[in-house]
Amino acid sequence: MKPKEDAYGQEIWAYFNSREVFEIVERDDGYIDASDYTKIYFSDYEDWPPHEKKAMEFVKGRVLDIGCGAGRHSLYLQKKGFTVLGIDASPLAIKVCKLRGLRKAKVMPIEAINFKPNSFDTIIMMGNNFGLFGSLKKARRLLKSFHRITSDNAIIIAETRDPYKTDNPAHLEYHEFNKKRGRMGGQLRIRIRFQKYATKWFDYLMISKAEMEDLLKETKWKIKKFLDSEDTEYIAIIEKIV
Amino acid sequence: MKPKEDAYGQEIWAYFNSREVFEIVERDDGYIDASDYTKIYFSDYEDWPPHEKKAMEFVKGRVLDIGCGAGRHSLYLQKKGFTVLGIDASPLAIKVCKLRGLRKAKVMPIEAINFKPNSFDTIIMMGNNFGLFGSLKKARRLLKSFHRITSDNAIIIAETRDPYKTDNPAHLEYHEFNKKRGRMGGQLRIRIRFQKYATKWFDYLMISKAEMEDLLKETKWKIKKFLDSEDTEYIAIIEKIV
Repeated sequence: MKPKEDAYGQEIWAYFNSREVFEIVERDDGYIDASDYTKIYFSDYEDWPPHEKKAMEFVKGRVLDIGCGAGRHSLYLQKKGFTVLGIDASPLAIKVCKLRGLRKAKVMPIEAINFKPNSFDTIIMMGNNFGLFGSLKKARRLLKSFHRITSDNAIIIAETRDPYKTDNPAHLEYHEFNKKRGRMGGQLRIRIRFQKYATKWFDYLMISKAEMEDLLKETKWKIKKFLDSEDTEYIAIIEKIV
Repeated sequence: MKPKEDAYGQEIWAYFNSREVFEIVERDDGYIDASDYTKIYFSDYEDWPPHEKKAMEFVKGRVLDIGCGAGRHSLYLQKKGFTVLGIDASPLAIKVCKLRGLRKAKVMPIEAINFKPNSFDTIIMMGNNFGLFGSLKKARRLLKSFHRITSDNAIIIAETRDPYKTDNPAHLEYHEFNKKRGRMGGQLRIRIRFQKYATKWFDYLMISKAEMEDLLKETKWKIKKFLDSEDTEYIAIIEKIV
């Protein structure tokens, strides 16, 4: 990643350095949104929503945290005694993780994941990071690789958002626009912007429960349980089929 | 203005309808910034900074509020018994002003200002709205017209920000970029974005005190007083030369 593409890391870095920060996400239909979500990346267990707290009870063994951001889940689990490796595509995010005390943190985009067989017992993809699967095809390819690098009883804990539970006309139109161009409705093409920094455009997949079950059909993974939130987010506990 | 260009009005409208809103401003060098400034447009006198409160003491007679936004200054002055006309280029902002109780509010961009001679005693351009002058040339042209539509003892109360008091390298570079293309350093070319709405690109002039004094030299207006804030904003009380 070129330094000017690390908009996400710059956002994390600025917040870490006590600057007021807002997250700006731009979608490829021209829709743009800002939020004060950055602080969530740094939030402590006490401030997490109930479904995220509940999800942590399923964690076991050696943990891989994909898209670990500022390391909130990794740091919590490390403190609980788990061996955790946090990975993120953003060099600055990983720098912040290390400064915050995460012992194992690596710059690694999801596409580059490559570990020895049986390296992890739990993979977590929190905070909508199921989205990093990007597309149906890419998800199935990556799930195959995740099957290889995990132990027999491994689980994946992945959070997403049901994109269809909205009444915003711009979002509803976008789902239609996506379907017309052969994409899943919630397959967002977005980029993050921060000052003059902008990530490359990337696919971030939001998916309903039915779509997720469908996606998993052709893989060696299956839903064990859904954990609902009070909003449209939910967490899937996904178990390995051996 | 086409409806899709009223990004500013949509932002005001959303906040008025109790939705959490952030203001997104994009500059023509690719710099983008979000803030929770929207709530300022709705703030009550009690919450204004001291220099804005002080500025209100200079108001007299019939008032024209240029770029009135959600009407915070107009509503305050109307309550004080002044006759106030609030104008804004944004139809939705004017709609919100009316719903909030402003009796005289009109959709009118600064370029379209055209009133009979001696129509106003005070013109206010608060919240960085000196910026609406856009450029040196346009400022001088508009100040000529303001001279015509105001009474002999008229004043202009205009707020801006000294753009050079910054250590942000992106801003410093932008000032140089501007000078190279024959613009004033703080002559920002920006647009406001909100969801899929985007204003047209427009010039918004930030100016130091020295530059403002220089700008006024070739007009029939002069500085009476500067009111400083604790930040880089300041207000100019500008009086008419007859």
